[in-house]
Amino acid sequence: MQYAEPIDNLIKAISRLPGIGEKTATRLALYILNAKKEYVEELAANLLGVKEKVALCSVCMTFSDTDPCVICADAGRDAEIICVVSDYKDMMALEGMGGFKGRYHILHGNLAPLKGIGPEELRIRELLARIESQGIKEVILATGFDAEGESTSAYLAKLLKPYNIKLTRLASGIPVGSYVEFMDGATLGRALEGRREVS
Amino acid sequence: MQYAEPIDNLIKAISRLPGIGEKTATRLALYILNAKKEYVEELAANLLGVKEKVALCSVCMTFSDTDPCVICADAGRDAEIICVVSDYKDMMALEGMGGFKGRYHILHGNLAPLKGIGPEELRIRELLARIESQGIKEVILATGFDAEGESTSAYLAKLLKPYNIKLTRLASGIPVGSYVEFMDGATLGRALEGRREVS
Repeated sequence: MQYAEPIDNLIKAISRLPGIGEKTATRLALYILNAKKEYVEELAANLLGVKEKVALCSVCMTFSDTDPCVICADAGRDAEIICVVSDYKDMMALEGMGGFKGRYHILHGNLAPLKGIGPEELRIRELLARIESQGIKEVILATGFDAEGESTSAYLAKLLKPYNIKLTRLASGIPVGSYVEFMDGATLGRALEGRREVS
Repeated sequence: MQYAEPIDNLIKAISRLPGIGEKTATRLALYILNAKKEYVEELAANLLGVKEKVALCSVCMTFSDTDPCVICADAGRDAEIICVVSDYKDMMALEGMGGFKGRYHILHGNLAPLKGIGPEELRIRELLARIESQGIKEVILATGFDAEGESTSAYLAKLLKPYNIKLTRLASGIPVGSYVEFMDGATLGRALEGRREVS
């Protein structure tokens, strides 16, 4: 026996979410079936809400319900330092740390030629425009240390070299709380290479 | 830093779903942020769709977008046998098996005095009305074999005794594919008690 059509449609729509298989989608759809109508209406309105009210900040390309976003509008932050991240989530993680007082630039992805993502698919043109017009002094390359993040960083380093600005990359090494014995060779190599003098 | 308000609202609404923690809710909300608008509109419409188009079948109390539901409307099914289940999911599991040709009655829960669920909270009155008016010959008690399912079954058995109809309970024993050595004592006891003669 099939589920009634509206239930089946909902299961299919939910199972298209990442990490949600058909079993979980069915469980959630049946929960929705039993849930209060007010909650379901609120959930649907919030889904539409993010698509309607959230857009990209025209300066740093982050998701925001204001333009410019809160960070770009904050005069207390250093407008001359741009921290370039692959993703909105990376920016939120760095903001969560709380120690960075410059601004961001969100690329919305990494270079991945095999997936058809080249420089044109990322927000690189907007980054160049900022550097050319806003008197930027330092660009911190804060893409990930996986293969795609590294190659995106290397690509940007080459691209930004002619601009005569300070170019930096996040440090790579052993994470706080980790043990040397459990680290892979590549990380240990980086940690050794980037070793610092102790006073 | 906080997420923009519409994003935060969505995270909160998603995290109220069962089995979805705040981390998963955040991941899904950020996926929605990046997803195609058409998909998000479809998802929202399907959420509202189940609340608008799906209601309880007035005969068996199952969720259905027609009234009576497909099963109650099917003249080829035996209207004199009612299989009483706790939940819509139980009915779908039995239908998936495909061997049952009677009809169902969905209680929408089990008796659970500690959670405040008494006979009035279940669709028992509707079951009695069916038995009194529709010439029912057999009621199969197909609630679960957990404590709540068993006590619900026992309660119904007592309640239905005066009606002079055949009352049966699903068999309890060792599931197909399982090994005797791994079964708990209660299940082995039931399996022994319900043993059948082999020809």
